[in-house]
Amino acid sequence: MTTADWIAVDWGTTHMRAWAMQGRVAVDQVQSDRGMNYLSPNQFEPALLGVIDSWLDTRRTTSVICCGMLGARQGWVEAPYAKTPCPAAGLSMVRAQTTDPRIAVHVLPGISQATPPDVMRGEETQIAGFLSLNDGWDGVICLPGTHSKWAHISAGEVVSFQTFMTGEMFGLLSKQSVLRHSTQTETWDDTAFSDAMNDAMSKPETLAARLFRLRASDLLNGTDNATTRAQLSGLLIGAELAAARPYWLGQQVAVIGASGLAHTYVAALAELGLAATHAPVDAMTLAGLCAAQRSLETA
Amino acid sequence: MTTADWIAVDWGTTHMRAWAMQGRVAVDQVQSDRGMNYLSPNQFEPALLGVIDSWLDTRRTTSVICCGMLGARQGWVEAPYAKTPCPAAGLSMVRAQTTDPRIAVHVLPGISQATPPDVMRGEETQIAGFLSLNDGWDGVICLPGTHSKWAHISAGEVVSFQTFMTGEMFGLLSKQSVLRHSTQTETWDDTAFSDAMNDAMSKPETLAARLFRLRASDLLNGTDNATTRAQLSGLLIGAELAAARPYWLGQQVAVIGASGLAHTYVAALAELGLAATHAPVDAMTLAGLCAAQRSLETA
Repeated sequence: MTTADWIAVDWGTTHMRAWAMQGRVAVDQVQSDRGMNYLSPNQFEPALLGVIDSWLDTRRTTSVICCGMLGARQGWVEAPYAKTPCPAAGLSMVRAQTTDPRIAVHVLPGISQATPPDVMRGEETQIAGFLSLNDGWDGVICLPGTHSKWAHISAGEVVSFQTFMTGEMFGLLSKQSVLRHSTQTETWDDTAFSDAMNDAMSKPETLAARLFRLRASDLLNGTDNATTRAQLSGLLIGAELAAARPYWLGQQVAVIGASGLAHTYVAALAELGLAATHAPVDAMTLAGLCAAQRSLETA
Repeated sequence: MTTADWIAVDWGTTHMRAWAMQGRVAVDQVQSDRGMNYLSPNQFEPALLGVIDSWLDTRRTTSVICCGMLGARQGWVEAPYAKTPCPAAGLSMVRAQTTDPRIAVHVLPGISQATPPDVMRGEETQIAGFLSLNDGWDGVICLPGTHSKWAHISAGEVVSFQTFMTGEMFGLLSKQSVLRHSTQTETWDDTAFSDAMNDAMSKPETLAARLFRLRASDLLNGTDNATTRAQLSGLLIGAELAAARPYWLGQQVAVIGASGLAHTYVAALAELGLAATHAPVDAMTLAGLCAAQRSLETA
């Protein structure tokens, strides 16, 4: 039987993940598909207990530190955004109402930016984790994903950030648009990705014209699905990199992400002459939740 | 009881439409949702007869002239693409196999372009219809829709064309992406559309950065859904217009489309200093099918 000193939780839109912690070490973990999207406010506590029950000690109250979309208005409890510029770590947590005396649930807020309008929930914890492991680091952090973020970090603060819908666009176009007939494959073409990314970066104004061409090229020339899929990814990531140029140009860059996608971004940045660091997303999330737990203890 | 001299059919991906014709006049019409996507090759003839049966004269064979996706490889019978540069009218039709002796079904081909790769099926008939009503017209025809087309016309020929997935992107982003939470409305904001379109045209490289901002602006500032929806449309149409600049710059432009969308494009082009003509899409399709029927009679 594992018992936890405290419990770390990353509760996103479609999934949640919990770690049983002893100090800074995760001694057990579990994942669930009961994401924020599928729960009404009064379903969060039972969903959480269903996952962590065996880690609880009945003789005391265990702290549960949570980040992610459960803190949105439509989540468990709203944790109002901190506003840029602000530290990524040490943000004020909000207590979620619970009935079970064995748990005390603390929810981390996201960060918002007034101009241009932007929001993040969850990524601030990954950034805090990265900074807790890289004391004094200044530069730009790229967090690729469904909604990719680029954040400018200076003196431990998130100065500004910008979100791109690159992952969501890739999902919609490759699974639901006319391009789906030409992108069904598990294989990949590095050269096709790189060429398409460079095309999109050098002439970003032609992106709208290049998408349907992928389908036409398959119809007329029988272009391989692996090539088409890599080209679609290259065009969208190229458009993101072109629009994010004010972020990465001349900067030290770290990419926080799962290994496959992060590798794609690191390789793309290498073509632009940037030696980006890769930091694995799970480890950064956990490090950020550890930092939040320490701030609670010292509060 | 209406009987038809001949029958005109526009058979698309999701719908089909048939007109009972006496000379160049449509005396009856019917629409069906049995589009090409929902039919296997041997289901086309019964689907057609189900719609046109009452118009047929049992004593003779009635010509049925069809345009659209039924001529695709996965349609009723493949009508191989004509290749640019080529006339929009007088394209070689393909006979579909039928068992009912009352009908002779002729299928118009689409047009393909080798470089850059592109294809159209259905729009060539609208273009042919427009040119049959505007003899000697040279310029650029814009056909907005799910897959918007821009075609350069000279001396009755389609010289080149380019397709944009603007309508499909708008549908996916407004109905299925995170932006759907901020775009559910039937109302519209002309100023928001125009500002967003001009933004996208002046800085097309920032398109990828502007999409998520629409959602963040709603979350942080409670931006009206009508404004957000018009901004999304403006960004996508602005990106199309920026990429299509080599088509419309300094040209005579005609927009073939349904009235709402065509009006949006005509107004957008007016802001760019172009007085575009609007030609209604149904009338152009019918005029194009009439031209094809006359070419069959004189063949």
